[in-house]
Amino acid sequence: MKALIYRGPGLKAVETRPKPEIQAAGDAIVKVAKTTICGTDLHILKGDVSTCKPGRILGHEGVGVVDSVGAGVTSFHPGDHVLVSCISSCGKCEYCRRGMYSHCTTGGWILGNEIDGTQAEYVRTPHADTSLYHIPEGVDEEALVMLSDILPTGFECGVLNGRIAPGSTVAIVGAGPIGLAALLTAQFYSPAELIVIDVDDNRLEVARRFGATHTVNSADGRAAEKVRALTNGSGVDAAIEAVGIPETFLLCEDLVGAGGVIANIGVHGRKVDLHLERLWSQNISITTRLVDTVTTPMLLKTVQSKKIDPTRLITHRFSFDHIIDAYDTFSRAAETRALKVIITV
Amino acid sequence: MKALIYRGPGLKAVETRPKPEIQAAGDAIVKVAKTTICGTDLHILKGDVSTCKPGRILGHEGVGVVDSVGAGVTSFHPGDHVLVSCISSCGKCEYCRRGMYSHCTTGGWILGNEIDGTQAEYVRTPHADTSLYHIPEGVDEEALVMLSDILPTGFECGVLNGRIAPGSTVAIVGAGPIGLAALLTAQFYSPAELIVIDVDDNRLEVARRFGATHTVNSADGRAAEKVRALTNGSGVDAAIEAVGIPETFLLCEDLVGAGGVIANIGVHGRKVDLHLERLWSQNISITTRLVDTVTTPMLLKTVQSKKIDPTRLITHRFSFDHIIDAYDTFSRAAETRALKVIITV
Amino acid sequence: MKALIYRGPGLKAVETRPKPEIQAAGDAIVKVAKTTICGTDLHILKGDVSTCKPGRILGHEGVGVVDSVGAGVTSFHPGDHVLVSCISSCGKCEYCRRGMYSHCTTGGWILGNEIDGTQAEYVRTPHADTSLYHIPEGVDEEALVMLSDILPTGFECGVLNGRIAPGSTVAIVGAGPIGLAALLTAQFYSPAELIVIDVDDNRLEVARRFGATHTVNSADGRAAEKVRALTNGSGVDAAIEAVGIPETFLLCEDLVGAGGVIANIGVHGRKVDLHLERLWSQNISITTRLVDTVTTPMLLKTVQSKKIDPTRLITHRFSFDHIIDAYDTFSRAAETRALKVIITV
Amino acid sequence: MKALIYRGPGLKAVETRPKPEIQAAGDAIVKVAKTTICGTDLHILKGDVSTCKPGRILGHEGVGVVDSVGAGVTSFHPGDHVLVSCISSCGKCEYCRRGMYSHCTTGGWILGNEIDGTQAEYVRTPHADTSLYHIPEGVDEEALVMLSDILPTGFECGVLNGRIAPGSTVAIVGAGPIGLAALLTAQFYSPAELIVIDVDDNRLEVARRFGATHTVNSADGRAAEKVRALTNGSGVDAAIEAVGIPETFLLCEDLVGAGGVIANIGVHGRKVDLHLERLWSQNISITTRLVDTVTTPMLLKTVQSKKIDPTRLITHRFSFDHIIDAYDTFSRAAETRALKVIITV
Repeated sequence: MKALIYRGPGLKAVETRPKPEIQAAGDAIVKVAKTTICGTDLHILKGDVSTCKPGRILGHEGVGVVDSVGAGVTSFHPGDHVLVSCISSCGKCEYCRRGMYSHCTTGGWILGNEIDGTQAEYVRTPHADTSLYHIPEGVDEEALVMLSDILPTGFECGVLNGRIAPGSTVAIVGAGPIGLAALLTAQFYSPAELIVIDVDDNRLEVARRFGATHTVNSADGRAAEKVRALTNGSGVDAAIEAVGIPETFLLCEDLVGAGGVIANIGVHGRKVDLHLERLWSQNISITTRLVDTVTTPMLLKTVQSKKIDPTRLITHRFSFDHIIDAYDTFSRAAETRALKVIITV
Repeated sequence: MKALIYRGPGLKAVETRPKPEIQAAGDAIVKVAKTTICGTDLHILKGDVSTCKPGRILGHEGVGVVDSVGAGVTSFHPGDHVLVSCISSCGKCEYCRRGMYSHCTTGGWILGNEIDGTQAEYVRTPHADTSLYHIPEGVDEEALVMLSDILPTGFECGVLNGRIAPGSTVAIVGAGPIGLAALLTAQFYSPAELIVIDVDDNRLEVARRFGATHTVNSADGRAAEKVRALTNGSGVDAAIEAVGIPETFLLCEDLVGAGGVIANIGVHGRKVDLHLERLWSQNISITTRLVDTVTTPMLLKTVQSKKIDPTRLITHRFSFDHIIDAYDTFSRAAETRALKVIITV
Repeated sequence: MKALIYRGPGLKAVETRPKPEIQAAGDAIVKVAKTTICGTDLHILKGDVSTCKPGRILGHEGVGVVDSVGAGVTSFHPGDHVLVSCISSCGKCEYCRRGMYSHCTTGGWILGNEIDGTQAEYVRTPHADTSLYHIPEGVDEEALVMLSDILPTGFECGVLNGRIAPGSTVAIVGAGPIGLAALLTAQFYSPAELIVIDVDDNRLEVARRFGATHTVNSADGRAAEKVRALTNGSGVDAAIEAVGIPETFLLCEDLVGAGGVIANIGVHGRKVDLHLERLWSQNISITTRLVDTVTTPMLLKTVQSKKIDPTRLITHRFSFDHIIDAYDTFSRAAETRALKVIITV
Repeated sequence: MKALIYRGPGLKAVETRPKPEIQAAGDAIVKVAKTTICGTDLHILKGDVSTCKPGRILGHEGVGVVDSVGAGVTSFHPGDHVLVSCISSCGKCEYCRRGMYSHCTTGGWILGNEIDGTQAEYVRTPHADTSLYHIPEGVDEEALVMLSDILPTGFECGVLNGRIAPGSTVAIVGAGPIGLAALLTAQFYSPAELIVIDVDDNRLEVARRFGATHTVNSADGRAAEKVRALTNGSGVDAAIEAVGIPETFLLCEDLVGAGGVIANIGVHGRKVDLHLERLWSQNISITTRLVDTVTTPMLLKTVQSKKIDPTRLITHRFSFDHIIDAYDTFSRAAETRALKVIITV
């Protein structure tokens, strides 16, 4: 089969690989129908993810059809249309029992990282019973590619951790795909103000279309001041960090009001300054989270009942033969205005 | 009346002052029976608290008897025995309605800071109806001096924010009075392990008597390693920071397990390094809090029903005439082994 | 001033009364601008509410302008535009501290019940600081009459107690004003299914316009069966009882799925059968609640930010001179299709 | 092997049966070391449990050693010492994902009910990975027999659903084994008052030894009055129903205070009267629950750290050869003062 292979920092290639086979009783082999590219895939290609070795098939998102299952799989059968979660969860370990699938002792984020992923014709998914999801009748399968990773990430790490509630004021720092996923799912809870902050006016324009009540271009260094003005000087109830650099985290420290939350989604490569000399008395919470995908069943219901349209995040479509072009388009997002790209296998 | 006056950095004196008078309809005048000294009083004397001006009567803890009340006070009458909360709460503003009395727009921590305090024969307490508490029958009044500040602080900022639960593993960094208050109140929730960390063996010995299941002297720089060993490599469910310096906060970052909480109690004077490059994926929470004293009614019930004995924190007793000695004893705690000192007025 | 007086079972009259005066330091006198009639007012007129004595001015809802305040009132001043809450809350007692304003030891539902109410030119409101709310700039005052009682009641007793969440399935039994208030506010949380059940097709048509995803006319006794069919046999996550008779509560017992909630809003006059022989193992909760109005600040923000339009509940408008007609229209709701009637004073 | 067989209403016998065999990939065969008898076993013997057919091996509690495992079992191996949970949980279905193992679509309470149970030399346990628990080092295995059912039942259905908290007032109605299990586990949360109510003075004496702060013999019909007196007229924060008949549930309705919870543990055979004409405005919750055993890991930690001693519930010990005597002793508990009986296989 064809697959997109990580060849080491800066290098990738489409190659022919043998079709994967069942290795454990809990495995399933899924014929991939559609996949996509994640910002994390670009991190791998920069050499930033040490667990991902050259030779790996990339990709941890997608929908497809079950091809075969191991002896222990009881919930899925060949022919079933399924959503592949970015997180593999055994459902048995202490962490899975606590709903922290991200820290599953034999799973977590392994697809397209420690084991071969979904940017291929077939993928082997471990712990299939608790890591695949049946696609509900009548739901657009392409839309569900957004449920592999980006929507649960924005929702769990940003919206749930941020404790968004009716009437609350929210600032989302970063209007890339993940910030926009937080923006879309935050609206499940009817906050009063949804302020989106970025340095790119194009992205801010998208944010307004996606439901931002205010947008702030932070290029002038005055974002905190502007947000304070919008909140009568109080700061926001929830500041969602969706970038992953010290500057944007610091901005969140400046935005958050007394009693509020900084919900971190960003993947950070460096330490940040935490100004406890000011924040120790502010009754705030700071949360971090690798997505657990425990809300996937809930999100499936919101898609099925049309409370959210995940296809709004899809800007480009490619066939697998043009996956290299898809990477190129996605990696030059500022220029191409790409959010999520769909690759049909 | 006699009062202990802050005279500027490094300076304090007992002076004679006029008895305070009702200034607003919600005020009460309380004749102080017993008071104590807080670590924060020492901070003021170092000149670290800019809101506290020379000439101020110090003290924000104590019990006493109501002397007179303003026209708007309905819950208290002259002769009532009362506990004075360190936090003044109007009960009306947005923050008080949310249970964040610490951020009351006309209250918060003002006693012995922005207005005259309890280290005097009388004290004026604003918002008396929602800042004083009736002393339940049969309860030792001296014990309740610990409920003005130290027990609610350890409980709210450390134990509640740390989400201590039956079976959980807890590390308390710092075995001073506030760490010990967290240690005592943590036991309300029956955690499996209560590990106390300090550099002072005397304090660790006290911690063991107060219920610590393990103690670790961190002077050798190997505390994190030892705690990891005690928790099968997982780290703790809750790390309670009860010191307030960058080194101890960093230790908490090293101790906390995936899915855990760092509950900060410490009053910090400098920023700290937050290692998000490692913690972004660990599903942790970091909380800060200035005590709200919303749990005072709950704590009163636990004292009344003998679930906790706050007098264990009291090591020394002085009459008001020797309050300067009391300060001396309290400020040399490492040497005198003082925890809390009671001053009878 | 003119006022609508309860004269004993079946009797009411507009009479002239002296303008009320400040009686306690916490009182305010409010000049009523707009008021409305509640189903509870009809209960009083039937003689069902023993606490309400003949001679009482009725009404516990309304907006107006502060005329004068007592010596202890600090948050309101003459000329302030205010919302009058149906619940008077002292903000000081044990229940108010717990957020259970409905059980305030010197308040609760007393307006238009134990003391004179809002269907008059002026009303005296006790505990003004914690029972009145400033009207935010730019908000339609008429809309806010719905925030005195009906919206917080539907929201707190039905939606919050029902734990409505994104993707959940909800059945609301009863499409009168209170059921519709629950229907409107349930949408703050993006449930997947909002099934409204009633015996009146007109009301069900209104429910569909207000956001019901399905409606069921229960006149044929097959409502439970139909709802089971709509939920793949599972029953609903939340069954909201908005009628108050044994038959509708029993229907909720039949509708609720394992792990679900029956959130009672209805005012019941008789005991009901609770089928514990079937429900003991179903992991359900049943909740009751007299509205606390603790969510009034939250609801004000949702109105101000246009997440909800409360005027959709207003069907008729009268001047105070026609308040007897207003009662007539409201009491024949099946015929007049009245939901809420606005009376301009 | 020898096994205790249900032979139809009123009939039981020890018989020889073939050793069970692995039937599905998730199965384990456990050699039973110790088991016990549950009140539910007596219900079966009365013919009250229609799902349990004659010929069934009874028993859903016990500890033992893994004998063999199916192909899909990854967490257990022959020789492992294990606790058998009374609830079989697949870990995959919608209910298991929500933590409602009791409603597992292919499990729940099936052991000794729909499939053969633990009162035998060997038992087949389905879904072994998520229904067995490793016995921690150094823990008394006999004590853990109490963790199969009775302690999680008292804790989850009574204590957790009752939201017991430091300082709260609790009434437990029924001082049989399950009420006492609630009594023991309630103390994890340091309530102020633990009032136990029963008609048997012997059981009340046991309750006092187990930590009850007050006991009330309800034989005179004045229990509600006495409890009101103990709570200053307010009623309790939590009323735990641990009997299962209409009279005791009604008592709970009389005991619960405004804002409180009735946490039902009792297995009811008849409907009860719910006095909504009084309770609709009391802001109470009523909860029901079949034990989920989701807290088994937490309870194991509390036993391991000696926060609870489950052996206090064990009053009698028998060898399997005398299991008929054990049933006799357990079924005449009022006379024999039996709480839990241990049967060594």
